[in-house]
Amino acid sequence: MELLTTNNVWMMICTALVFFMHLGFAFLEIGLTRQKNTINILFKNIFIITVGLLLYCLVGFNLMYPGDFNGFLGFAGFGLDAPLTDAGALDLAYNEGYTYWTDFLFQGMFAATAATIVSGAVAERIKIGPFMIFTVLYVGIIYPIAGSWKWGGGFLDSMETPFYDFAGSTLVHSVGGWAAVVAVCLLGARIGKFKDGKLQAIPGHNIPLATAGVLILWLGWFGFNGGSVLSADPELTSLTLVTTCLAAASGGVVSALVSSAMFKNLDLTMFLNGILGGLVGITAGADQMSPTDAILIGAIAGALIVFAVSFIDRLKLDDPVGAIAVHLICGIWGTLAVGLFGNLASGAQFLSQLIGVASYAAICIVSSFIIIFILKKTVGIRVSEREELEGLDGHEHGMDAYPDFRMNEH
Amino acid sequence: MELLTTNNVWMMICTALVFFMHLGFAFLEIGLTRQKNTINILFKNIFIITVGLLLYCLVGFNLMYPGDFNGFLGFAGFGLDAPLTDAGALDLAYNEGYTYWTDFLFQGMFAATAATIVSGAVAERIKIGPFMIFTVLYVGIIYPIAGSWKWGGGFLDSMETPFYDFAGSTLVHSVGGWAAVVAVCLLGARIGKFKDGKLQAIPGHNIPLATAGVLILWLGWFGFNGGSVLSADPELTSLTLVTTCLAAASGGVVSALVSSAMFKNLDLTMFLNGILGGLVGITAGADQMSPTDAILIGAIAGALIVFAVSFIDRLKLDDPVGAIAVHLICGIWGTLAVGLFGNLASGAQFLSQLIGVASYAAICIVSSFIIIFILKKTVGIRVSEREELEGLDGHEHGMDAYPDFRMNEH
Amino acid sequence: MELLTTNNVWMMICTALVFFMHLGFAFLEIGLTRQKNTINILFKNIFIITVGLLLYCLVGFNLMYPGDFNGFLGFAGFGLDAPLTDAGALDLAYNEGYTYWTDFLFQGMFAATAATIVSGAVAERIKIGPFMIFTVLYVGIIYPIAGSWKWGGGFLDSMETPFYDFAGSTLVHSVGGWAAVVAVCLLGARIGKFKDGKLQAIPGHNIPLATAGVLILWLGWFGFNGGSVLSADPELTSLTLVTTCLAAASGGVVSALVSSAMFKNLDLTMFLNGILGGLVGITAGADQMSPTDAILIGAIAGALIVFAVSFIDRLKLDDPVGAIAVHLICGIWGTLAVGLFGNLASGAQFLSQLIGVASYAAICIVSSFIIIFILKKTVGIRVSEREELEGLDGHEHGMDAYPDFRMNEH
Repeated sequence: MELLTTNNVWMMICTALVFFMHLGFAFLEIGLTRQKNTINILFKNIFIITVGLLLYCLVGFNLMYPGDFNGFLGFAGFGLDAPLTDAGALDLAYNEGYTYWTDFLFQGMFAATAATIVSGAVAERIKIGPFMIFTVLYVGIIYPIAGSWKWGGGFLDSMETPFYDFAGSTLVHSVGGWAAVVAVCLLGARIGKFKDGKLQAIPGHNIPLATAGVLILWLGWFGFNGGSVLSADPELTSLTLVTTCLAAASGGVVSALVSSAMFKNLDLTMFLNGILGGLVGITAGADQMSPTDAILIGAIAGALIVFAVSFIDRLKLDDPVGAIAVHLICGIWGTLAVGLFGNLASGAQFLSQLIGVASYAAICIVSSFIIIFILKKTVGIRVSEREELEGLDGHEHGMDAYPDFRMNEH
Repeated sequence: MELLTTNNVWMMICTALVFFMHLGFAFLEIGLTRQKNTINILFKNIFIITVGLLLYCLVGFNLMYPGDFNGFLGFAGFGLDAPLTDAGALDLAYNEGYTYWTDFLFQGMFAATAATIVSGAVAERIKIGPFMIFTVLYVGIIYPIAGSWKWGGGFLDSMETPFYDFAGSTLVHSVGGWAAVVAVCLLGARIGKFKDGKLQAIPGHNIPLATAGVLILWLGWFGFNGGSVLSADPELTSLTLVTTCLAAASGGVVSALVSSAMFKNLDLTMFLNGILGGLVGITAGADQMSPTDAILIGAIAGALIVFAVSFIDRLKLDDPVGAIAVHLICGIWGTLAVGLFGNLASGAQFLSQLIGVASYAAICIVSSFIIIFILKKTVGIRVSEREELEGLDGHEHGMDAYPDFRMNEH
Repeated sequence: MELLTTNNVWMMICTALVFFMHLGFAFLEIGLTRQKNTINILFKNIFIITVGLLLYCLVGFNLMYPGDFNGFLGFAGFGLDAPLTDAGALDLAYNEGYTYWTDFLFQGMFAATAATIVSGAVAERIKIGPFMIFTVLYVGIIYPIAGSWKWGGGFLDSMETPFYDFAGSTLVHSVGGWAAVVAVCLLGARIGKFKDGKLQAIPGHNIPLATAGVLILWLGWFGFNGGSVLSADPELTSLTLVTTCLAAASGGVVSALVSSAMFKNLDLTMFLNGILGGLVGITAGADQMSPTDAILIGAIAGALIVFAVSFIDRLKLDDPVGAIAVHLICGIWGTLAVGLFGNLASGAQFLSQLIGVASYAAICIVSSFIIIFILKKTVGIRVSEREELEGLDGHEHGMDAYPDFRMNEH
């Protein structure tokens, strides 16, 4: 009982920290985009966290953790169904690490994250109505089904060498990242991003908030990874925080070094994205790595970020916040790294990691393509050219983010 | 001892989270008002949290928890008086959920909240001197006396069916809300708010910070409600966090839906206020509701917000941040909802809730009217027309919130 | 085991809170300076936290806690070396309050703070390259060696009446503050700060973020002081939070009162710096003071801030954010206060505190002078006049913090 209470306190704090990541995502996304779309982005982010929680309560939790099931798709029924003792109290034997309520809320906070990642990639030109429909389907149905394959005990969890994804490099970050790629392809680049085939930088309008967003996300990762231990086990939780922070640090430093060498500039945005890349990279194996492993995984993630951002630009994919590089590329890297570094490293594990990555690629690409393609062919997914040029804030929301300030024209 | 340690850890974390709500309130209030009054608002908020804590140490804690008393007014003496063992150490038998010090600090963080609510409603035109006097009296004396009626074991706690207010829909939020109504009536509307009898929108100057404020407040509510369990009891704390978050989510979504239907706009401000309405609404019974109850209570709060804002406008009351709708209307709703939903629902409970609401209305309206009316008739409570038009920042503080930025004239 | 788990949870939360202080420092520093140097400041701050952690992993932790050593300088080897049981698991007998990993991470978060303090004082005119070199040496080598003298069990800890510094008024805040003085002296004032020998105010560009920074720092101090108990001991942790918060409150209030009386203005910046002064002041003895002691210590710190800022101005030292007044002056004050107030007050203790202050003055002044003087004579430490006037953001980083906003010329 004492131990359950302590474990549950830790899990509730981690839940609060993961919740707070939504402010981090919001700050990062508005900071790296233009002021004329700020309200729109904030509205999307607030929509995601509120509707995401309600959907996870209605269907998501029971799709993701259906109990005994065929390994691909199961559903334990609508709504929450707390286990009770004969006396009608909550059955605390549910788990030694947390109560049923904590379990739901911690997992619910994760669920909304996937859609938030997409939000960043499609910012500044997506119609908000279709985005909301996409969010409902992706957070409410696709994310939990995909999650059940591993965390719900599905087929990826019951392979001979089970696929391993500690806190969601693949289950959360790539799931968002794959949909981001699909959405960006179907949506096209922002007007002015590629002029006569040449890349034009579109600078973000509020770098202090973007920086704050990254620090808030790093803080949130204390809960994201620390809570994924699913108890307050002193050894595992504290090791996890150490590997998480060291990977973040080395990701940032390497990203800054590489980008400074390449572009002769001390690029703050790359520094920030390198931190996030390191965090995403360590997430799959944060409890299985030594500090040295963590520093190496983060460093490689940091280098990857710089090259990935350039590569994505060269593909003429317009991802305003770098979500694909951070969440997809580093998500894949972190997942594979579990087979290369740390306690689980082995050829068999690496193969399982590859199978996992491919499985999530398949479900995410196919499902998000179907949803977004149908939306594109029916209601349309892109705002009018005039709305894009004038900004989405006035058109969709009738509001201005900073009405007292004078703005530059562009 | 192990359990006390764990309980106390939880309570200290909740204390920290409630403290952090003061940044949420500050961001929300400046975000929804004009830049020319930003310094003034920040000054007020910093004043409230610092002076509020000192007053709660000097008199508040012992007014609110006087021990055995007549049920209406008691006082256990100035300053703090920690219970000691014979050996001179702190007596840990004080409570199994927390130490004496934690008790004081957690309650002290609550105390300042009531004045902060008023601050939002009177923003942009109140003289800061009289506001500081009001704060001292209201936080230092009225709030704790009113609080003693229920949480101190006073007459509302000893009725046959005791009044129930888990975390302060009435004891905190309405206590602020009632004074906000009185202050707004005595103060009058901002210049330009009602032109020829017609409502003019005065847009807030920094919506990203307002949005951040709401997310920070939501985070703080993990501590506000979660800590009101007064221990780390796994079942109650985790249930409370679930009901709190679901009510916030449904409050926001319903508010956005209703306001979008009414005004044909995806109104971010209403979305945000709906979240706060849901949070205030669930606060009175967060530990007594099922998830479904919580969603319903939040949803009704969210709808109420939209109508209340319109209604308050029609009454020609000028409340720049919507504090009355959020904290008073949803505070009353949440208090009454304890008699309608969840474990305590009954006719007798509903009656007790009504008695509670009426009692707090009485003490708050009367006391705040006396204080503010006397201030109005003596030193005056409203800045000069010139100061209001030019902004309070330059006149009262000799500072500019954003001196490097060019501003629009208005 | 239950107790270790609880203690470790508390220590991990405190670690997260201390990490979050880096956002507080960043917000405070950019808020109190001009927008044209914002990117530069954020880059410095992100550099400090990332590189600081890596250095603390590589050498710092083992320099600061070398085990048995001569009391002045010891080194337990490169990298981390976690104690293991025979079975290869982490040895949880390491400490009853935390695991080896938690110990490293908590102390690592402290390490970066010293450099951050310097960062504020040298803002808006230091070359970033030399600053980064200074940071590496000061955080990586000087801070941990100096720290070992007391927290590592060195000579200041083994005096007959040991020097006492609970959470680092001296070991962290003065260590940053002394280097700040040296750096400011060697660097000179910003162009325009002293015109014809007369002080010119250079107003900070974003006071809402500066205010948020102070509230975030206050929140972080829950972990900075609360975690310095090195366990979740209910009495000590909760007393520490009470003294910390009361000192912050009284520091702010007294600073506001004194500065209002002197300058006939309700000065928000002084209010904020007073809060920080109170926090720094209580840090050396937060676990040894009564609430009344804490209020007095904070109040004196708050008054000191106002006079120190004036005094530093009169010395023609240009410290844009008031770091020297806050961290050095109040750090010294707080350290001496341990000999004057609370459980340890005595003449012998006061003498030990003086010896401690002098020892840290010696190592910090000498080492930072050597480092910065060599940098000045070799690569130079100050940006060109043109770069300073145009802003460091464009020159060093090729970025603008707020490209969509129109700025005033100056």
